Amino acid sequence: MSMANPSDGVKGPLTSDQDGSIPLNFGIIVFPGFQALDAFGPLDALNTLAFTLPLNLSIIAATLDPVSTKPPSIPEIKFHQSIVPTHTFTTAPPLDVLIIPGGRGTVDPSIQFAIDFVARVYPSLKYLITVCTGSGIAARAGVLDGRRATTNKLRWASIVELRPQVKWISHARWVVDGNVWTSAGVSAGLDVVFGFIAEVYGEQTAERLANHLEYKRHTDPSWDPFAELHGLTDS
Amino acid sequence: MSMANPSDGVKGPLTSDQDGSIPLNFGIIVFPGFQALDAFGPLDALNTLAFTLPLNLSIIAATLDPVSTKPPSIPEIKFHQSIVPTHTFTTAPPLDVLIIPGGRGTVDPSIQFAIDFVARVYPSLKYLITVCTGSGIAARAGVLDGRRATTNKLRWASIVELRPQVKWISHARWVVDGNVWTSAGVSAGLDVVFGFIAEVYGEQTAERLANHLEYKRHTDPSWDPFAELHGLTDS
Repeated sequence: MSMANPSDGVKGPLTSDQDGSIPLNFGIIVFPGFQALDAFGPLDALNTLAFTLPLNLSIIAATLDPVSTKPPSIPEIKFHQSIVPTHTFTTAPPLDVLIIPGGRGTVDPSIQFAIDFVARVYPSLKYLITVCTGSGIAARAGVLDGRRATTNKLRWASIVELRPQVKWISHARWVVDGNVWTSAGVSAGLDVVFGFIAEVYGEQTAERLANHLEYKRHTDPSWDPFAELHGLTDS
Repeated sequence: MSMANPSDGVKGPLTSDQDGSIPLNFGIIVFPGFQALDAFGPLDALNTLAFTLPLNLSIIAATLDPVSTKPPSIPEIKFHQSIVPTHTFTTAPPLDVLIIPGGRGTVDPSIQFAIDFVARVYPSLKYLITVCTGSGIAARAGVLDGRRATTNKLRWASIVELRPQVKWISHARWVVDGNVWTSAGVSAGLDVVFGFIAEVYGEQTAERLANHLEYKRHTDPSWDPFAELHGLTDS
């Protein structure tokens, strides 16, 4: 690849999918009031992987207008950032991997468009990754039914009640069930994406990228001091 | 404050500055090829603080066009995100705190506009915070001369040679010298901003926000396994 520096090369084994190809086509949903780090933790690990693999990213929203981290319920906030979508829920291309962040916007009525999108595209995905209360979007789309999953620990009660058909796991940094990877709150998005990269692109690649981000990964998916902090038990 | 939920209230003591006010007006510089997590780690901690304090954020760039994480030197990259600036280097309002991220774009000739901006506004700031190779921008602006500072450990050699007048500290997650907070690579932006929040807004506030992000802070500024990984010694 012309973009690759030999010293940045992928050193780990690449695990191919059932159809023999590694996932290259990523999408992320954004909506007003998404939590910035939920999105940019995983995205920046993948930004760095994209220096050595020809990954594609679609940033998917209701419209192509910039999407702010400002929660719709708190319009007076003057500290927020806006990201530019590349596709809408109706123009999004086929995806291998869909990432769903959380945030206060997940409780806004407009989140229904994201829920409908997830329900529609999930069958065509190779993998689904949720961060924080993004698992509530996946849960409401029905794609977590019968699966083990986790979510944000501060908002635990309000998420698990959305969908009792999900086997909610309280003490987990992240949970893998089939092709669905769900993680705990906000910064857990970094750990789940490194876990995903280790599984799909190889442990050496995950470690190289984590060192690049100077991030000390939590590699134990059951590590969760925040479940303990909030005194949670499985539902 | 009307935006505050009582349960989200600031519980820690607020330390006022010399002029008796706490810093509320933040700015961040962005440029093509900025590293996403360098920016969005600190910003998301502050986004969360802004739910209980009336913080303002200016996103400052060369123009008001969206600014991509795509490095100018790698135009073929198809995995990147764009953030929308609110001000240019000529329209930026007075700031209490300026945040400077790093990234591959710091080696592009166009970074000179950011360097000139930092040199110009530094005297009016209460605090300067740099993340990763963002310290190279501050160094080239001359504002780190005679100060202790740190930077990204993977790019260590290329940064420290930019400005020998800086007292570069190799083994550090972050370094504070006067009103300048410099941090190590990428994810170190989270630890430096929580250290800053603890110092300026109170330890209890920092801990509350870190728990909100489900982030286990590195609270020891000398913690740095990445300096060891790269076998670094102070210049």
